[in-house]
Amino acid sequence: MQQPVTIEWAMTRAVELAARGLGRTAPNPVVGCVVLDAAGAVVGEGWHSRAGGPHAEIEALAAVGDAARGGTAVVTLEPCRHTGRTGPCTSALLAAGVARVVVAVPDPTETAGGGADLLRRNGVEVVEGVGRAAAEHGNRAWLHAVRTGRPWVTWKLATTLDGRTSAADGTSRWITGATARAAVHRLRAERDAVLVGAGTLRADDPHLAVRGLDDVTQPLRVVLDPRAEIALTARVLDDVAPTLVVVAEDADATRLTAAGVDVLALPVGERGLDLAALLAALHGRGVHSVLLEGGAHLAASAVAADLVDEVVAHIAPALLGAGSPVLADAGITTITEALRLTTTDVARLGDDVAVTATVRRER
Amino acid sequence: MQQPVTIEWAMTRAVELAARGLGRTAPNPVVGCVVLDAAGAVVGEGWHSRAGGPHAEIEALAAVGDAARGGTAVVTLEPCRHTGRTGPCTSALLAAGVARVVVAVPDPTETAGGGADLLRRNGVEVVEGVGRAAAEHGNRAWLHAVRTGRPWVTWKLATTLDGRTSAADGTSRWITGATARAAVHRLRAERDAVLVGAGTLRADDPHLAVRGLDDVTQPLRVVLDPRAEIALTARVLDDVAPTLVVVAEDADATRLTAAGVDVLALPVGERGLDLAALLAALHGRGVHSVLLEGGAHLAASAVAADLVDEVVAHIAPALLGAGSPVLADAGITTITEALRLTTTDVARLGDDVAVTATVRRER
Repeated sequence: MQQPVTIEWAMTRAVELAARGLGRTAPNPVVGCVVLDAAGAVVGEGWHSRAGGPHAEIEALAAVGDAARGGTAVVTLEPCRHTGRTGPCTSALLAAGVARVVVAVPDPTETAGGGADLLRRNGVEVVEGVGRAAAEHGNRAWLHAVRTGRPWVTWKLATTLDGRTSAADGTSRWITGATARAAVHRLRAERDAVLVGAGTLRADDPHLAVRGLDDVTQPLRVVLDPRAEIALTARVLDDVAPTLVVVAEDADATRLTAAGVDVLALPVGERGLDLAALLAALHGRGVHSVLLEGGAHLAASAVAADLVDEVVAHIAPALLGAGSPVLADAGITTITEALRLTTTDVARLGDDVAVTATVRRER
Repeated sequence: MQQPVTIEWAMTRAVELAARGLGRTAPNPVVGCVVLDAAGAVVGEGWHSRAGGPHAEIEALAAVGDAARGGTAVVTLEPCRHTGRTGPCTSALLAAGVARVVVAVPDPTETAGGGADLLRRNGVEVVEGVGRAAAEHGNRAWLHAVRTGRPWVTWKLATTLDGRTSAADGTSRWITGATARAAVHRLRAERDAVLVGAGTLRADDPHLAVRGLDDVTQPLRVVLDPRAEIALTARVLDDVAPTLVVVAEDADATRLTAAGVDVLALPVGERGLDLAALLAALHGRGVHSVLLEGGAHLAASAVAADLVDEVVAHIAPALLGAGSPVLADAGITTITEALRLTTTDVARLGDDVAVTATVRRER
């Protein structure tokens, strides 16, 4: 850690550090920070690891002592100037005596924003926009939630090369391999909530909690159950993680509420429960990211309502030629209406391929 | 070229060189050769670049002179011992005085095989099996053709993430981007023949020749036209590349033959023209590799007849939710009957993803 580094390198590292907080920091953003001494060598690293815990800058400065004096703090998000559950980061940076703060993304919130100006007024050089694209991508869920008032929705799908999610007789175990199935737990761990529809709930009795990973914050499990039919013995109602059962406004959910189940009643439209209202309600509970785990009809409703922000497709090298398509009719009738995405990552998961892509909003 | 190299490195290089001949050497295999001097430094490289042209060993030795004496020839396929259109490679290697020949794959043919034994009887050390998996993969079309009597069939498909190849109204321009579409011409150039079905022929008036690449051998264009309905003005009947029109046995093709069109009449079964008979006939014409370019019904017929050996899927980051599936019903009814493949390559083509996978035959 003795060699001087560039601020671009330090920002890339800060973005990596920030990602360690994914799934744990809601309603806060993920933030990473690297502190360089006056000679440009790394002397501190930190990240925001949980809501209520220290901010990234505080963590990074914690063990630095005087080494930060005259140095640089490289941080993925503009330091906050308000006092939330922790003290403002701007004060900590000033107290540490850094000469320069490098920021990737300005803070869009009213309460926390303005940190850069405050630093400048106190004689600190502030450089903005370094590594901005990567830092915005790393914080896309929180930024999206702040800007739109609803969580970032990632649709996770598992499909054959020809777009089938089960065979003609309904069998689907397994389309993808063990590596891809294990990767789903990482996707869950990095989100604040996991959502499945009524069809999946009935057919699979899914558990939806994160398994096989240490030291994770379990996501909120959200199941759509318009007619309030879920059995109290359903796996998703165990105590491994919190669960929200979403029912129709006119459904009788007294059986569930009497049993202590957390129930949310929503209006029903042509395509079922009002997903926009659900996402707004989840946002109100501090949920900034949702993993939509199928099935074809729920995904089609979300696509039709333009509520899908990202797709993670686990594609198995297999062909079925018949069976259920991975996405049902979403009201798209011609090629120019196709929901187009921008590929952000391609990875191999054993023999399967994971394609991550973000929905283009300019269409 | 002065540093000594390992034979593994030299074989990897020889496999690369061999690939330069793809699409040009039928009915011969692709072969690459690297010649090392007695100290292990590379002194010659060659590949078989066209049927009737010099074999890889001859090319590699051409400019080496005495430098090969006591050295090593590293070659992807066992050197031939017969005299075809060119002299036997074993003689050339003996004349050059190499002390060692390293071979990846034994020659499975009766007429050409036995080269390794002949070299050994003449005092040359022969090492077999180095880099065999990669060399077999590079020569999979020829090896498959020699072993089975039919060409290696690669199905090229273009699909959205949800397995659609056109929208509900039939529009499909374009599913994939320009980079992926350009890559299709490389796939064509590396095959001996390109095949489309009657539906594609009618709907698209395809040209099927290689465009945008220099110095290629055009593949044989093969179109299925069971009722011999093709217009003489069809683009595929121009003189850019040879074309074979495949008709049903009971169709009247006199209009086509009178116009000088190359016509092949085949029996018709439940799923249309007999594809196994077509592949056997193509093999008889020296075709060792076929690129199947859709559509969904032709591909389903080929899958149902177990005639697809490899899939190249160009997957666009787009969702349609409706429209034509990329693969029609192929008679697969349950998940354990799924056609399973092994992924051999994943590449990004702009925003699209290309997945190349080989059909597993052990199922």
